Amino acid sequence: MTDTFSAPPSDKARLEEGSELTPRFDAAGLVTAVVTDAGDGAVLMLAHMNAEALQLTIETGLAHYWSRSRDRLWKKGETSGNMQRVEEIRLDCDQDAVLLKVRVTGHDATCHTGRRSCFYRRVEKTAGGGVHLVSDAEPPKFDPDQVYGKN
Amino acid sequence: MTDTFSAPPSDKARLEEGSELTPRFDAAGLVTAVVTDAGDGAVLMLAHMNAEALQLTIETGLAHYWSRSRDRLWKKGETSGNMQRVEEIRLDCDQDAVLLKVRVTGHDATCHTGRRSCFYRRVEKTAGGGVHLVSDAEPPKFDPDQVYGKN
Repeated sequence: MTDTFSAPPSDKARLEEGSELTPRFDAAGLVTAVVTDAGDGAVLMLAHMNAEALQLTIETGLAHYWSRSRDRLWKKGETSGNMQRVEEIRLDCDQDAVLLKVRVTGHDATCHTGRRSCFYRRVEKTAGGGVHLVSDAEPPKFDPDQVYGKN
Repeated sequence: MTDTFSAPPSDKARLEEGSELTPRFDAAGLVTAVVTDAGDGAVLMLAHMNAEALQLTIETGLAHYWSRSRDRLWKKGETSGNMQRVEEIRLDCDQDAVLLKVRVTGHDATCHTGRRSCFYRRVEKTAGGGVHLVSDAEPPKFDPDQVYGKN
C-alpha cells in the first residue's frame, strides 16, 4: 500500500471526469464522509477521514475515520463492536467528499447514543411559528452506558 | 422569522436529546448538509449551510446553501432550474450536520456536471494493487455548457 494519494490535478476536467483517485483534503487534511446502509440506503452518519483513514478503509474494507473530537484515528466500532464493512466507496465530483455504503455489524447501530442512525431528529414547525426537533420513536439498539461505560 | 438560532447548550444531553434546534456552526459559520432524494433515498450531494441558508431553507422549503467556492449564499437551482423542494430536514446527534430529503425540479439533476448525483464514480481496485475511479454509465441529464454557458 502506498501511504499517500497523488495531489489533485489543477485541471478541472481531469479532477471531475478522470479515473484517478486524488482526494481534495482540506486545510486540516480531511475529507467529509457520508455513510449509508448498503441495504436500504439510510443515511447513518457523517464523519471525516484523513489520508490514512481513507487508505485503511480501502485496504481493510472496514471504515476508519479521523476523530476530530479525540484528535486521533478511529476504527469505527472498536469499542461498541458496531463496525462498518464497506461495500462501496464513491467520490463526489470535486473529490472532497466520500460516500461509503456499509453493512453495520454488532447491534446494527451507528450512533454513539445507541440509535441506528445519527439523524434521529427531524425539524418541525411549531404552531407559534418557530421550529423544534422531534425524535423518532424507535428505541436505541444498545445502552451507551453499558457499552462505553459511565463517565 | 428570527434570523439567528440559539447557541448550542453546553449540556451534552440537552444538545443530543433535546428538542431545541441549536446548530453547531463551525469556525467558518457552517454546518455540513447531506442531500438525498426523498423518493429513493439516493445521496445526491454534499454542501454547506450558514445560519441564513438554513433559515431560508426552513422558511421557503427550497434548499439554500453557502457556496464556499463563490463565497456567497446559493439558492440551489437558481441557474440550472434544478431546485430542491425540501420534504424533510434532520439534524444529527451533535447538531453539526443536516440531512435534507428533497425532490429535485428541472432536469432531476443535482450535479453541475449534469448528472443526477455528484457521487457518480466508485473506487475500484486495479489488478496491479492500486485503485482507480470508475464512472457510472448513466449519461448526464443536461449539458452544462448549454445550461451554465461555456466557461
